[in-house]
Amino acid sequence: MNYSIIFYILSRVLQVEGIFMALPCITALIYRENSGWAFAAVMAGCFIIGTIGKRLKPKSHVFYAREGFVTVSFSWIILSLCGALPFTLSGEIPSYTDALFETISGFTTTGASVLSNVEALSKCSLFWRSFTHWLGGMGVLVFILAVMPLMGNYNMHLMRAESPGPSVGKLVPRVRHTAELLYTIYFVMTIIQIILLLISGMSLFDSLTMSFGTAGTGGFGVLNTSAADYTIIQQTILTVFMILFGINFNVYYLILSRKIKQAFKCEEMWIYLGIIVLAVFLIVLNTYSKGKTLLETFHHASFQVASIITTTGFSTVDFNLWPQFSKSILVLLMFIGACAGSTGGGIKVSRIIVLCKTVLNELRMTMHPRRIGIVRFEGHTMEKSVVHSIERFFAAYILIFVASMLIISLDNLDFTSSFTAVAATLNNIGPGLEAVGPSSNFGNLSMFTKYILMFDMLAGRLEIFPMLVLLMPTTWKK
Amino acid sequence: MNYSIIFYILSRVLQVEGIFMALPCITALIYRENSGWAFAAVMAGCFIIGTIGKRLKPKSHVFYAREGFVTVSFSWIILSLCGALPFTLSGEIPSYTDALFETISGFTTTGASVLSNVEALSKCSLFWRSFTHWLGGMGVLVFILAVMPLMGNYNMHLMRAESPGPSVGKLVPRVRHTAELLYTIYFVMTIIQIILLLISGMSLFDSLTMSFGTAGTGGFGVLNTSAADYTIIQQTILTVFMILFGINFNVYYLILSRKIKQAFKCEEMWIYLGIIVLAVFLIVLNTYSKGKTLLETFHHASFQVASIITTTGFSTVDFNLWPQFSKSILVLLMFIGACAGSTGGGIKVSRIIVLCKTVLNELRMTMHPRRIGIVRFEGHTMEKSVVHSIERFFAAYILIFVASMLIISLDNLDFTSSFTAVAATLNNIGPGLEAVGPSSNFGNLSMFTKYILMFDMLAGRLEIFPMLVLLMPTTWKK
Repeated sequence: MNYSIIFYILSRVLQVEGIFMALPCITALIYRENSGWAFAAVMAGCFIIGTIGKRLKPKSHVFYAREGFVTVSFSWIILSLCGALPFTLSGEIPSYTDALFETISGFTTTGASVLSNVEALSKCSLFWRSFTHWLGGMGVLVFILAVMPLMGNYNMHLMRAESPGPSVGKLVPRVRHTAELLYTIYFVMTIIQIILLLISGMSLFDSLTMSFGTAGTGGFGVLNTSAADYTIIQQTILTVFMILFGINFNVYYLILSRKIKQAFKCEEMWIYLGIIVLAVFLIVLNTYSKGKTLLETFHHASFQVASIITTTGFSTVDFNLWPQFSKSILVLLMFIGACAGSTGGGIKVSRIIVLCKTVLNELRMTMHPRRIGIVRFEGHTMEKSVVHSIERFFAAYILIFVASMLIISLDNLDFTSSFTAVAATLNNIGPGLEAVGPSSNFGNLSMFTKYILMFDMLAGRLEIFPMLVLLMPTTWKK
Repeated sequence: MNYSIIFYILSRVLQVEGIFMALPCITALIYRENSGWAFAAVMAGCFIIGTIGKRLKPKSHVFYAREGFVTVSFSWIILSLCGALPFTLSGEIPSYTDALFETISGFTTTGASVLSNVEALSKCSLFWRSFTHWLGGMGVLVFILAVMPLMGNYNMHLMRAESPGPSVGKLVPRVRHTAELLYTIYFVMTIIQIILLLISGMSLFDSLTMSFGTAGTGGFGVLNTSAADYTIIQQTILTVFMILFGINFNVYYLILSRKIKQAFKCEEMWIYLGIIVLAVFLIVLNTYSKGKTLLETFHHASFQVASIITTTGFSTVDFNLWPQFSKSILVLLMFIGACAGSTGGGIKVSRIIVLCKTVLNELRMTMHPRRIGIVRFEGHTMEKSVVHSIERFFAAYILIFVASMLIISLDNLDFTSSFTAVAATLNNIGPGLEAVGPSSNFGNLSMFTKYILMFDMLAGRLEIFPMLVLLMPTTWKK
C-alpha cells in the first residue's frame, strides 16, 4: 500500500473542505450568529493541516485499485469527521456521534436526521448541513478532480469507485474533462432551480438550501415540516427537479452536444420515467377518496414518488399513514433508486433492468437449452463480465443489508423500523417507516445502531465494495 | 408442446394419488368417521380417471425441458386440486379456496394453515393433511419415478425441475436407482422416528402424523398448540429429526456405502450445522433470564431454530413474542433454508455459500485485477455456469418475492405480516410473524392473497423456474 500518496490526496481533500467552510462562515456573518466561530476554527484547522500535509510530496506515484478504494473511502470518512466538528463545538448538536451521523447523512446525500427540531439550529449550521448534500451529490472527489491538476493516471480508479452506478458513460475520454462537464451541468441546473424557487416567492436562504438538497438528492430541509409548508407551486418545482436530478447525466451531455435523437433513445431514462408514472398512478388509485381532490392526491403522490425513487427524502405528507400497498410501493422504489450516472442512490434503474433481463433470458434458455443467451441494454449487447459484476453487486448488497438488519435489531425496534432504517440508509434516502418515518427521526436509536447505519450510508454511496475493502485483512497486508 | 405425453403422465399421477387416498379411508374405518365417504369418493374418481387417461398412450415420446417443466408444475397443481376435494366434500373446510390452500401447503411441505381449530377436523382428514407433507417431502415425482417403469430419457428433465437445490448429487448414474435409493433412506428414517416417538409414549396417530410432518419438513401438527403440548423428550426427538431431514441426502448415501470419511467431508453439512449452533447460541443469549432455566431456554431455542432453518414450521413457543434480535435471526434462517438435496426448502445453504464465496472472490479481484477468480465448493472448482445460474436463481427469487409482497399488501396488512407471509410461503416454512405468526393463521387473509401465496408455495417448492415458465407466453406458442 502506497500510504504517502493516500496521505497526500487526503490532505488535498481537507484543504478543499476548509475552503468550502468559508460559506457557512459568511452565512454566520450575515445573520450575526455566534456559531460562526466554530466554523471559522474548523475551517482554519482543516486548511492549515491540509496545506501542510500537501507539502509532503508522495514518495511514489504507484496507485492501484487498492489505493484508489482506500483513498475514496477515507476521503468521505475524513470529510465527515471534520465536517461534523462545528456542530459539536458550537454546542448545537452536543453529541459528536449525532453530529457525525448528521454529517455522513449529508455528504452521502442520505438526508436521515437525528434532529427532532431542525429550526433550532443556527442559519450557518443549516447552510452547512444542506451544503454537504450539494458537495456529496456529485461525488466530492469528482468535484475535487475537476479543480485540482491531474496527477498521473490514478484518477481513473477514483472515478471507478466514485461514479454512481455501473456506467457513468464514457462521455469524453479525458477524466478531468468529464469531471468539469458533469460539474457544469450540475452547477447550472442548481442555479436554474434556485432562480425558479426565488421567482415562486421562496426566501433566498430556503431557495439555496432546498436546491442543495434537491441537486444532491439529499433531503435535509430547513423546516421541521420538511417540504410540507411550501406552496403547491414550490413543491411542484421541487418534484420536477428531483426527477431531473435522478436522470443519467449522459442524457444532458448528449442534449448539450445537440445529439437530441441519441439522448431520447436512453432506455434507462424511459424506464425510470415509466416506473415513476406507474407508481404515481397506483398510489393515486390507492390513496384517493379520502376527502381530497384528485389533483391534490396526484400532487402528493408525485412528490413522494419523486422524492423516494431519486432517494432524496423530502416529504409533504406523512406517508407512514398511507395504506400498506402505497407504502410497499415506496419501499420498493427505495431499492430501485435513480438512474446510474445521476446524483441519486439505491440499486439504480439500469442494474434492475439488467437483472430482470437476465432472469427472462435464463427462463428462455431453460426452455431452449441450445439458444445463446444475450442480454441487450441501451442498444448494445451487455458484456458477460458486466452482467456478472452486477449480479455480484446485488449479492454483496443483500449480504450487507441482512447483516446490518440483524445487528441493529439488537436495539429491539420492530421489524418494519429495522428493515426500513437499513433500506433508507443503504439506499441513501433518509426517512423510512414507523419509528424512522417522515414524522420521526433517527435520534432515538442507540449509539451502536447509529454507527452501523453510518457504515451503511457510506457503503451505499460508494457502491458497496470500497467500504467492504476496508474490512478485508488482505487490504492491510504487506 | 407434446400435450399427449403430459396428459399421460398426469393421468399416472392421478392414479397414484387415488391409491394413496386409501390410507385416509382406512383411518376413517378405524375411527368410524363419516368423512371417510368423501375420501372414498375422491379416491375412486382419481383412480378411475387416472386409469382411463393412462390408456391413451402418448402419440410421441418427444420430451424436452419445456414439457418437463410444464409436467412437473401441473402434477403438483392437479395433485393439490384433487387432494383438496375431500376437505370440502366432507364439509370440514367449507371453502374450496381454503381447502386448496391447505392442500398446496401440505404437498409443498409448507405447513401454513388457514385453520384456527385443527382439532375440529376428523382423524382421517388430519391423517391426509399430514400425509401430503410426507408425499411432497421427497418430491411426489421422484416418488412416482421410483415405482413406475422408466419411459425413454425424459426422467432427467423431471429430476432437474424437482430436485431440491442446485446439486442433488450424482449419486448413481441411473435415475430410477437414485429415486429408489433416496426413497429408501427417507422411508427408513421416517420409520425410525415413528418408533422413537412411540417409545417416548406418544400415541400411534400422533407419532405417524408428526413424523410425516418432520420427514417432509412440512409442519402441520394435529393439535392446536402445534408441538407445545408434547413432552420434552418428544420435542427433542422432533428437533433431532428435523435437523437430520435437513441434511443433504448425499451424506446418508455415502454413509450407507461405507464411505464414512467422504460423508464427513461434506462442506454444506458442516456449515448448516454451524449455522444452527450459532443461531441457537445467539438466541439463548438474547432470550435467557426471563425466569426460565438455561436448559429450558436452550431447548426452545434449538427447537425453533431447527424448525425454521429446515423450513418445517412446528413450534413449542410463540416466537413472535421473542425480542426483535431473535426474530430477525429466525427471519434470516427462513431465507437460508436447509441443505440442497434434503427435503427442506428455502434458498438452500449451498447457494448461500456459493454466493458468499463469489462476493469475497469479487472483492479479491477488485484488489488484484489480474488474479483469476475461482470459487471452490465441496473440494471442487465451481463451474462458472453453475455460479451464474445460482446468481440468476437469486435474482428470480428476489423478483418473485418483491412482486408477491407488493400484490398482497393490497390486503392492507402491516409490513411485517406481508413480508413474513411471503417469506414463510416462498421458503415453504409455515408460520411467519405478527398476523401470520405461530399463534395465528392464514385464514383471515383475502381470497386473492391466498391464491398469490399458493403460487409462492409452489414456486418455492419447484425452485422458481418451473412456475415462471407457466407464465411465459412462449411456453404456449406453436
